[in-house]
Amino acid sequence: MTAEHFAGMDAVRANYAALTPLSFLVRCRDVFGDREAVIYGNRSYTWRQLHDRSEQLAAALKAAGIAKDDVVSLMAANTPEMVEAHFGVPMSGAVLNTINTRLDPETIAYILGHAGTKLLITDTQLAPNVKLALEHMGDHGIKIIDIDDAQAGTTGERLGDMDYDTFLTTGNDPTDWQLPDDEWDAITLSYTSGTSGRPKGVVYHHRGSYLMALGTITGWALPAHPRYLYTVPLFHCNGWGHAWTMAACAGTIICNRTVSARVIFDAIVDHNVTHFGGAPVVLGMLVNAPEDERREITHPVKVMTAGAPPPAAIIEKCSALGMEVLQVYGLTETFGHVVECVWRDEWNDLPLDEQATIKARQGVRFPVTEDVTVVDVSTREPVPADGKTQGEITVRGNTVMKGYFRDPQATADAFADGAFKSGDIAVVHPNGYIEIKDRLKDVIISGGENISSVEVEGAIYKHPAVAVAAVVARPDEKWGETPCAFVELKPGETASEQDIIEHCRALLAGFKAPKTVIFEELPKTATGKIQKFALRERARNLS
Amino acid sequence: MTAEHFAGMDAVRANYAALTPLSFLVRCRDVFGDREAVIYGNRSYTWRQLHDRSEQLAAALKAAGIAKDDVVSLMAANTPEMVEAHFGVPMSGAVLNTINTRLDPETIAYILGHAGTKLLITDTQLAPNVKLALEHMGDHGIKIIDIDDAQAGTTGERLGDMDYDTFLTTGNDPTDWQLPDDEWDAITLSYTSGTSGRPKGVVYHHRGSYLMALGTITGWALPAHPRYLYTVPLFHCNGWGHAWTMAACAGTIICNRTVSARVIFDAIVDHNVTHFGGAPVVLGMLVNAPEDERREITHPVKVMTAGAPPPAAIIEKCSALGMEVLQVYGLTETFGHVVECVWRDEWNDLPLDEQATIKARQGVRFPVTEDVTVVDVSTREPVPADGKTQGEITVRGNTVMKGYFRDPQATADAFADGAFKSGDIAVVHPNGYIEIKDRLKDVIISGGENISSVEVEGAIYKHPAVAVAAVVARPDEKWGETPCAFVELKPGETASEQDIIEHCRALLAGFKAPKTVIFEELPKTATGKIQKFALRERARNLS
Repeated sequence: MTAEHFAGMDAVRANYAALTPLSFLVRCRDVFGDREAVIYGNRSYTWRQLHDRSEQLAAALKAAGIAKDDVVSLMAANTPEMVEAHFGVPMSGAVLNTINTRLDPETIAYILGHAGTKLLITDTQLAPNVKLALEHMGDHGIKIIDIDDAQAGTTGERLGDMDYDTFLTTGNDPTDWQLPDDEWDAITLSYTSGTSGRPKGVVYHHRGSYLMALGTITGWALPAHPRYLYTVPLFHCNGWGHAWTMAACAGTIICNRTVSARVIFDAIVDHNVTHFGGAPVVLGMLVNAPEDERREITHPVKVMTAGAPPPAAIIEKCSALGMEVLQVYGLTETFGHVVECVWRDEWNDLPLDEQATIKARQGVRFPVTEDVTVVDVSTREPVPADGKTQGEITVRGNTVMKGYFRDPQATADAFADGAFKSGDIAVVHPNGYIEIKDRLKDVIISGGENISSVEVEGAIYKHPAVAVAAVVARPDEKWGETPCAFVELKPGETASEQDIIEHCRALLAGFKAPKTVIFEELPKTATGKIQKFALRERARNLS
Repeated sequence: MTAEHFAGMDAVRANYAALTPLSFLVRCRDVFGDREAVIYGNRSYTWRQLHDRSEQLAAALKAAGIAKDDVVSLMAANTPEMVEAHFGVPMSGAVLNTINTRLDPETIAYILGHAGTKLLITDTQLAPNVKLALEHMGDHGIKIIDIDDAQAGTTGERLGDMDYDTFLTTGNDPTDWQLPDDEWDAITLSYTSGTSGRPKGVVYHHRGSYLMALGTITGWALPAHPRYLYTVPLFHCNGWGHAWTMAACAGTIICNRTVSARVIFDAIVDHNVTHFGGAPVVLGMLVNAPEDERREITHPVKVMTAGAPPPAAIIEKCSALGMEVLQVYGLTETFGHVVECVWRDEWNDLPLDEQATIKARQGVRFPVTEDVTVVDVSTREPVPADGKTQGEITVRGNTVMKGYFRDPQATADAFADGAFKSGDIAVVHPNGYIEIKDRLKDVIISGGENISSVEVEGAIYKHPAVAVAAVVARPDEKWGETPCAFVELKPGETASEQDIIEHCRALLAGFKAPKTVIFEELPKTATGKIQKFALRERARNLS
């Protein structure tokens, strides 16, 4: 066919628009303007109000001198301001950098410096650490805007000259903004947890965030207008992109400063929450909640869980509470979830514990993920789908990050396979479902045998007294390394080191059972991930 | 922010893949390989089989000399071959041209010639007209492959040397194909009905077809694995893109050669159909079906209707049958639907007839449609949202065609507004919902007053004896034009011309009531659209 037959068919304004989740917000204003968009205690906003406040934020940022590709940072809880920032900051052309609120001042200072933050919006409840971070930076030149939340319970120190609501009024014509011309433009910058070395700045683009929203609706089979409880911190992978997803399906977002069993049960019953997300520790909190924090759930609730492989026992108990758990897997570098444990009808008749075991697998790729392949760490060839051979998960597609900020070498390294190297070790089951065995660096090598810390943890969780467990390598003269378990018991329950070890020996090959069991509260990240790097340090220093 | 901070963040294989619905098929093979993809009478294929057959088709096309951007035409019913072609033809890099099976031989010949068709796959049931078309073309040089459907009931003449199933075996390595590098590549070529002048060739691209699928899942709130009855001809806007949509959500497609009330009721009950689409005449067929063709529907069924504004009375009766009707609006040039009549909770308490009136409006833009604006036909400025002022619908977004094939001037004209000019006349209600009043050329101008033929038709449909109605302009010496109605009565019902006119006078301003009513069978297109151009001709020639 000659090319001239396709003449005059270039992308023009009529038939091409850069993909951006901001389009969804504009549509919500136009089509669902009167629907509730955000509910937070005694405050609530319709989609028209959320749109207009986001426009005001964008206008205020521009009036404050923020230009395209400048970085605006947020230190905030999951309050309406945090949701608005996900629209208002990119509306101004700037890049949104949400910072983990539980980081230490030095790391916060590192991030603000590396990001080159021009303006910081910070919740006064977080003022102590932010103040230390800014002092640590010295002459930082960052403009500070304070979120002073009347519903926070306590008053925090203001670090800037202006509070957020006043700032919103400082812009010129709020309607004077444009959607991005280039869907490859940066939309957010999120720093990895930095368990090894300095945090890396992961950049998302508008295209990926748009596709992530539509892919989540498809992959999670979201109905029209879900009622979504935002328990996942918005500073973690931009809250798995769910603020943008809710704009795509005109849902309602229920906000809370804190996450607890009581908060979640109350929101489900009082706000008719239909969907929420949370790390397995959040699910554990729910199933282990004392009776007086529970409420009876009488409508279907769907839960997306990620961040760590959830113990089968917890999934089973969630089902009993009326919550349908979908496990997903992803990383900051992949906009959040790229793999989901899609349920198959033929599994409905399996015993509940077998169902829970399947649900604890990570599964298969999301609708908008092009490829997920587990490759041998040396040859980079796909491993056989035998449920045994371990390899590294690699991910390819439009929801893989634009790259690492100010670090082209790290970007090139991460993409060297022609796919993103996750650093996670998994097997592929014969049905194609992947199951994570460990982080590359979490594998325990004992007497030349690889031991999956996740497998040992799964065994420990089956002990009825155990609330939380984590297993790491402990250096050992004879074996090189041995499994060392850290355990939190349920309130009122007791178990000895020997109880746990014998329990594991009954379930696992002998060499996989922990040689050491330590009972104490486990260090966790803001997203509920157990900080294994801290536990490894503990294990190394055990006398 | 300096550009170097974003260094090393170009689109590479790890983080960029051209958007194409073919990705969904590959995912279905990988993830849902054992699920039923297509059911047609005694034949059925899993997603793995559909994928593999599509690969075989692509390989056979390439072995037959078909190259990138070559046009492959289909004259086929909604059988599995038609579904496979939507994947296999673009897999080969070629462009799929599906032809309306009810066209006359001369128009078919025009399309094959204009498209430059290299290979034609044609159902032997359609051989008589196709043969005449090819004879009309003379030395056409088109390779012919025959679909010889054992379930067709009768044997048709083969026009080529090879049947479809044999053709599938003629390729080399079927796995040797690539997804497109460029999402702007053409995927299909569809000719408009050509009610005025020659048909125009509308070209779709992979990007739009991918987004259409995800947008439909979001806009229609499709569940996982819907069971979809393909009553919409796949030659019409590629069956509204639903074959690709079903790949995105791993649904099951139920095929049929014919559309009738019996076929639809049987499929709903026997195949547990959850979703289907059809023009309002198809819905009319269902609600007016004789008792012995009906089956009791005991599960929820959702129906997408488009092609003409559905009479409120028909929507109301569909609800009573257990079918939830979503009216959508779009054109061949917009990949199908771009506007949907989104239901609002506050309308649930309205009387059923008022609900049906609302559902007969076209509504608001789809999730992946950037903009739908109704503009004054002269000034091109938006009309006020007053429910009265008429203007032309314009559409902008990623599901607007790539352009008209071999017609850059027509493309430029259609996009001159910076949006696609639909040629449809509508009003905007105060809530932002649009309501089509007429095709630009269907407005009747009587004594200087504009009369919407759709409004008059709506009144006629409220008469209990009326099955189908269409109103066109009849030239008149005194008034310029007057409304002329063509009516089909329900079996066994009677009504006189005067009955219809008086019925309309009771509902409409006097000048809008038809001056002439003719009772006869109405000419319809293959998609159930009434051929108004033929009726206008009839009205012109009335003595």
